[in-house]
Amino acid sequence: MSFTLTILGSSSAVPTSSRYPAAHVLNVHERYFLIDCGEGTQMQLRKNGIRFGKINHIFITHLHGDHIFGLFGMISTLSLLGRTTDLHIYANAKLKQIIELVSPYFYEHPLPFNIVFHPSGSKRQQTIYEDEMVIVRTIPLKHRIPTTGFIFLEKEVQLNIRKDAVDYFNIPVKDIHSIKSGKDFVTPEGETIPNHRLTLPPWKPRSLAYCSDTAYSEKILKYVENVDILYHEATYGDDMEKRAHETLHTTAREAGRIARLANAEKLIIGHFSARYKSILPLLKEAREEFPETFSAEEGEIHTIERKRSKRDQ
Amino acid sequence: MSFTLTILGSSSAVPTSSRYPAAHVLNVHERYFLIDCGEGTQMQLRKNGIRFGKINHIFITHLHGDHIFGLFGMISTLSLLGRTTDLHIYANAKLKQIIELVSPYFYEHPLPFNIVFHPSGSKRQQTIYEDEMVIVRTIPLKHRIPTTGFIFLEKEVQLNIRKDAVDYFNIPVKDIHSIKSGKDFVTPEGETIPNHRLTLPPWKPRSLAYCSDTAYSEKILKYVENVDILYHEATYGDDMEKRAHETLHTTAREAGRIARLANAEKLIIGHFSARYKSILPLLKEAREEFPETFSAEEGEIHTIERKRSKRDQ
Repeated sequence: MSFTLTILGSSSAVPTSSRYPAAHVLNVHERYFLIDCGEGTQMQLRKNGIRFGKINHIFITHLHGDHIFGLFGMISTLSLLGRTTDLHIYANAKLKQIIELVSPYFYEHPLPFNIVFHPSGSKRQQTIYEDEMVIVRTIPLKHRIPTTGFIFLEKEVQLNIRKDAVDYFNIPVKDIHSIKSGKDFVTPEGETIPNHRLTLPPWKPRSLAYCSDTAYSEKILKYVENVDILYHEATYGDDMEKRAHETLHTTAREAGRIARLANAEKLIIGHFSARYKSILPLLKEAREEFPETFSAEEGEIHTIERKRSKRDQ
Repeated sequence: MSFTLTILGSSSAVPTSSRYPAAHVLNVHERYFLIDCGEGTQMQLRKNGIRFGKINHIFITHLHGDHIFGLFGMISTLSLLGRTTDLHIYANAKLKQIIELVSPYFYEHPLPFNIVFHPSGSKRQQTIYEDEMVIVRTIPLKHRIPTTGFIFLEKEVQLNIRKDAVDYFNIPVKDIHSIKSGKDFVTPEGETIPNHRLTLPPWKPRSLAYCSDTAYSEKILKYVENVDILYHEATYGDDMEKRAHETLHTTAREAGRIARLANAEKLIIGHFSARYKSILPLLKEAREEFPETFSAEEGEIHTIERKRSKRDQ
């Protein structure tokens, strides 16, 4: 029951010798969601031991090169490796045009797999992906071109039934499913046993929000409230606040403020300008607003552990 | 007076965790020639401490993605860094179309620098670049799409005059230039002093040929005869000879044979298939044909030292 984010790229548009353009893999229950696909993503996947075949869904925030230049090579490699499974790409509709424009030059026709494009609007929130375990919604962001963040929400899973209760109340198999879905149990004698006596407290659904690239905007708070991990861009530090505002980016301190106002559990800052040899000043500034701040570092894995909710009994 | 090749990428189409797609920098007298520009080239330049501003000439062998997917990010980064100097790209004419197709999506218009395209034909040899120190010619190769290798030839430089001879014969400044260009010296008394008594033996012009991607073809021998370094692709080993021939690639043994028949000084094999965890078997096979074989390894620098020619006196 994983919920882990692997950082593949933490730089902004200009990469450095140690920081790559934006790319991240979120593993939710063995579904691998690639979030942004900057240049070098396929090499970073290799380095981090994530098999290409596991990537079925790619979420692209916006069409600046540092978020998509890895796609061309990824598609080429997937094709050469003989992929046949559909590849789903969630992005601004123009990405389909771009891929179609360059395909005749770069790829065998037809590709051995389908690319299924899911256009993302950037004006209002939309549910862009859903299965039995996870739901993904867009987060409208404020940048120089249409941009959306994404929030990945684990769905509530069935309750775990208490084995001692099954034995004690002699619960028949036919009633297990209904108890796991939250129902009470009525004994053959007509006594109602409340669900909370039969099950363990439910798992708290986990969540991760990814907000990059964006200007500081409190409008996003309603989408990211109480999130477990907020990944927020922090291209600049206080020293470059003016530049951050001009280019519709965020400072580390502002990212910290968003995390605090959103009541996030943990903040990861990333998308750092190449001008910063050390990220420590940015980390310090963000932590003055929100102590639980970490900097994105290539190869690091951030795990959200499962926790049970508290239950009034 | 450098003549050094830095390997940035040694993989074929599918990169591995340690091998990147094709890219190399040749430094000839502080001119930096980028040869192929696979995905990740800009990160590899950073890692190897080569400043982007030094790259003014990019030579692209052919338009398979693993040789050009790094160009989009390079152009973007050069633009963000405020480059104004012309960037020269030597490649199949279609590359211009591709860059022009994607530019409206990826780049500010206009770019702050000009891209000057120099189309390379793949049918016969052409001189594609020349300045006072270096000449670059294409090498027609045999691949699935139009492909050219490149040979970089140092020009003969002026002779070094012997200081002791200047003193001994009391040579006036006005005659220095003509002696350096190979002329004899006539003393005021009418005695002719032959040039070889006045100058050191000339430097041997150095050369590097880059042949990738290509099927084994002895037709290239005439273009690469006596070259100092032959870089030749060796995508496969003996075990995959059939596949090599089907896909118009070369085996390591065949690359060794080309080096031997061409009387090269040294062979570098590269463009390795991702199937080879170790390159040692390929190296062994190539060395059975040509002992002075080395495998391309990211970050390694191959230097051709200046040597003086032997002179009959």
